[in-house]
Order: sequence, then C-alpha cells, then structure tokens
Amino acid sequence: MIGRLNHVAIAVPDLEASIAQYRDVLGAKVSEPQDEPDHGVTVVFVELPNTKIELLYPLGENSPIKGFLEKNTSGGIHHVCYEVDDILAARDKLKATGARVLGDGDPKIGAHGKPVLFLHPKDFNGTLVELEQV
Amino acid sequence: MIGRLNHVAIAVPDLEASIAQYRDVLGAKVSEPQDEPDHGVTVVFVELPNTKIELLYPLGENSPIKGFLEKNTSGGIHHVCYEVDDILAARDKLKATGARVLGDGDPKIGAHGKPVLFLHPKDFNGTLVELEQV
Repeated sequence: MIGRLNHVAIAVPDLEASIAQYRDVLGAKVSEPQDEPDHGVTVVFVELPNTKIELLYPLGENSPIKGFLEKNTSGGIHHVCYEVDDILAARDKLKATGARVLGDGDPKIGAHGKPVLFLHPKDFNGTLVELEQV
Repeated sequence: MIGRLNHVAIAVPDLEASIAQYRDVLGAKVSEPQDEPDHGVTVVFVELPNTKIELLYPLGENSPIKGFLEKNTSGGIHHVCYEVDDILAARDKLKATGARVLGDGDPKIGAHGKPVLFLHPKDFNGTLVELEQV
C-alpha cells in the first residue's frame, strides 16, 4: 500500500541558519523558502537524490508547528510522509485496524497540492505519519 | 557532500506490533528482525521503493535506545542517516563550522558494516544525524 518516502519534515527554529547548514556545510541543493499561508508554514526543500527533507518554519500566529518548537526549542523531526495510490482506501484500511486519522478524517489538500491525511502518532510508534496520494 | 537519505530510524516499544503494522496494514516489504549485539539493537528494515525505514528495538542492558524509549514510551523517530562519499572529509568540514561529532570523533563501523558518525542533535535542528560512508 505505501510507496515512496515522499519527505521527512524537520521543524527548525532558525530557517536561515538551517538553510546555510544544509546548503553550505552539507552541500545539498536547497530551494528558496516558500510561504504556505494555508498551512501556517514556510517550507524549504532540501533535495536529496532519492527523496527530500522539508525544513518547516512557523508562518503566522496559528502555525501548527509553533507549539512543537516551543517544546523542542532546537527543532526536531516533525513527521514522515509516505506516498499512497489511493488515500481513501488507505484510510479505510487503517481505520479498520483502529488507527486514528487526525482531524475530521477526510483528506485535505496538502502543501504540494495533493490529498493528504495525518495519522495519530500514538498509533504509529510515536511518529506523526502523513499519507499523500500521488 | 551529502547524498541519498539512507534510512530513517524509528525506535519502537513493541517490535512485533510495529512489524505487523508496516507489513500487514501499510503493505510494506519488511525484513526479518536482525540482532546487532555490537550496537545494542534489533533491527527490522522496512523497504520502500526509494529508501528504508529502520525499526529499532533495544537489545541487551546497555542498548543506546533504551533511554530514548523510556522518555518516548510510544516510540519515536530516532535519527536520519545521510550517505557521504568521504566521511573524514565530511567530518572535518562539519567540525570546522563548530558542529559536534558524538563520541571520540572517529568513524565507527555501523550496523551496515560501513563507517558512520553521529552529529550532535543540538547542532542540527534537534535531529540526530548519522553520516554513513558508502
């Protein structure tokens, strides 16, 4: 059911410092920052040969990662995103096993313009899992 | 300098349950558990098309992930591993920018039989980063 690891998202407290670290020290290809006001984040893509790292920085007062960064002041890995072919089939299969889908359970349009769902970390080894239909 | 994302390691409190979840619910290809006594972990590889997830479970009394699971009782993402061509060159470049290498600073042979280093999470957005020479 799950396909590629689409990305690993890392919440960062200082976006410029993180960009410099990935670009200048680690030598990775790093995108320009993109504001995603609908999602309350500014995103920078670190493009690796096989997947990407998304650096997330809070945008606006109601950013969903603001609380995370208050608890994790150095930053931290926020979630992993797995690709699926059919997000509704995936959701229904997961729900049938007792896994909780966050929010109202319906896919939303994510930061890449594709349907996404988030699964409750307590049901997935303490890991916030995003499913993205590709 | 950094290449592929080699793996994302997730520490899990119940290895059998995590295997069943990735294999039976998410439909991923999952390896047999492998004991790595030199590293104090039992490892299960979840093979995705572009990278892998490593499920880590403590092995022995001095397992390096025992404390992590005491703090994160549901489990959690433990580290990410980036591939590098030349681990000594990578280390020296990182150290020159003030990044701290864990342990004595010399590469060790990791769980895949290749030289690895770990970087201090406080210097990398709260993320424990493993570098593996491939």
